[in-house]
Amino acid sequence: MTNVGRDTEEIIADMYEVSVEAVVKAGLSMKQMSSWGIGMPSYVNPKTHLLVRANNFGWVNLPIIDYLKKYTDLDIYIDNDANCAALGETLAGVAKDYNDTLMLTIGTGLGGGIIMDKKIYSGSDKMGAELGHTKLVYDGIRCSCGQKGCAESYCSTTALVRQMREALEEDKKTLVWRLCDMDLSKIDGKMIFSAAYQNDILALKIINQFVDYLSYALSSFITIFRPEVVIIGGGLAESGDLLFDLLKTKTYENTFAAKEIGIPESVPAKLGNDAGIIGAALLQLHSDKR
Amino acid sequence: MTNVGRDTEEIIADMYEVSVEAVVKAGLSMKQMSSWGIGMPSYVNPKTHLLVRANNFGWVNLPIIDYLKKYTDLDIYIDNDANCAALGETLAGVAKDYNDTLMLTIGTGLGGGIIMDKKIYSGSDKMGAELGHTKLVYDGIRCSCGQKGCAESYCSTTALVRQMREALEEDKKTLVWRLCDMDLSKIDGKMIFSAAYQNDILALKIINQFVDYLSYALSSFITIFRPEVVIIGGGLAESGDLLFDLLKTKTYENTFAAKEIGIPESVPAKLGNDAGIIGAALLQLHSDKR
Repeated sequence: MTNVGRDTEEIIADMYEVSVEAVVKAGLSMKQMSSWGIGMPSYVNPKTHLLVRANNFGWVNLPIIDYLKKYTDLDIYIDNDANCAALGETLAGVAKDYNDTLMLTIGTGLGGGIIMDKKIYSGSDKMGAELGHTKLVYDGIRCSCGQKGCAESYCSTTALVRQMREALEEDKKTLVWRLCDMDLSKIDGKMIFSAAYQNDILALKIINQFVDYLSYALSSFITIFRPEVVIIGGGLAESGDLLFDLLKTKTYENTFAAKEIGIPESVPAKLGNDAGIIGAALLQLHSDKR
Repeated sequence: MTNVGRDTEEIIADMYEVSVEAVVKAGLSMKQMSSWGIGMPSYVNPKTHLLVRANNFGWVNLPIIDYLKKYTDLDIYIDNDANCAALGETLAGVAKDYNDTLMLTIGTGLGGGIIMDKKIYSGSDKMGAELGHTKLVYDGIRCSCGQKGCAESYCSTTALVRQMREALEEDKKTLVWRLCDMDLSKIDGKMIFSAAYQNDILALKIINQFVDYLSYALSSFITIFRPEVVIIGGGLAESGDLLFDLLKTKTYENTFAAKEIGIPESVPAKLGNDAGIIGAALLQLHSDKR
């Protein structure tokens, strides 16, 4: 366990405080609550009750339940933030007419959430469904998780920006080079899509390559789960038709038996950050207890 | 629909005949049966009740239920042969102490079966879990299904033999070249493993590469499903410790968070062809009705 001390106590205190604030804002009181649901990176090992790893907080094998229990007697439910977002969108968002969905959250990383019969599926030991860490490129580039070729290393916004930066090293006569004021650190996903909508050839080429990777990853998930609908979340989901039209075409081309049995539609998430909050709040009814 | 006529009638008649034979051999009668379970390649689209595609019989969108109903009033259950094998091994074979398993059948193709809570999981529309057609190599070689980079194209016995033949084109001073009497068409998986057990360097190298591919595919499936145990079936499962020791080492190396949360053991199937028969017979109790 690393970096556990005052910082951890503070973070946990913050988590409780924002939860109480949300309850009060809704005109309710904590006494009316039946559970405390939390969505966060990583997951709790149901055997050890330890939070396995949350890199951004420096937590490894943290006894998070013990920390949280100091604040409340409520039953506590914790799940992966991507799972919570998928649940929120399926219960109350863009996929509320469906029971079986799959959500990819494209951001710093690639989060995946699988909903079966309106419940989170996370593998037989509740530590699976880590779609971002399935393999996409055999013997591919090194992921932040330490493994090689993970989908996350090719299908996150971070990956899109990396692909654009690499291309700009080669060819600087493009719109993105001007949009970022010749400062590669200013490039983000929005800028790349903005250039593409202005018909910048390099941006279109990079996005084409990026969506090709994404369609390969998505095709595997469709071939396994055959969800009724695919929800795309995260900042890139706001990129509009360019992303979704290309993704539709490429996923159809690249998916097993698409011609015979079809593929589900991919749609942008609509709840934004609220998806994860709504999903977390409803964990008690839609997940196994941790 | 192609090639439907006398041949199809004959095949269906054979299917019924072997089922009756099995019942009689068991000292029972068809009147005592409560359902007819069938495991076969491909799958029945639950919406259209058509068998989507069985390449080896030349069947596309075959109304198989109508054909079968001519023989019996029993309820009919049909599932993919790899799913049936996984169910058989989990209910009565090597994995009978487990509820959540994953089986890979390594043969001409790569079959996948996922068992959750002792039932077959095959996606929300019952046409998924086609693990052999998930992507393993981005933009990889063309699979028999028409797609590129499928796991099946790298992790089947067919793929192992292809990899060995390609290597022999380059280097003929090896044991396999003698074992096959200089006739590449005679090479099979057993021969390659036999050479490897005799320390043939080329055979060891090819097997090492093959198991590396297999470990990548398996790592994705473990990262999604986190099964309690992985069952390896098909002819190659009889290859002994060389295969399983290498697979264990490489899967541990190549799987997300293996150090933190471990990986399930991979074990050889033990029921052979009976796995599929037992699984098919028990479909009524362990699958959704088709």
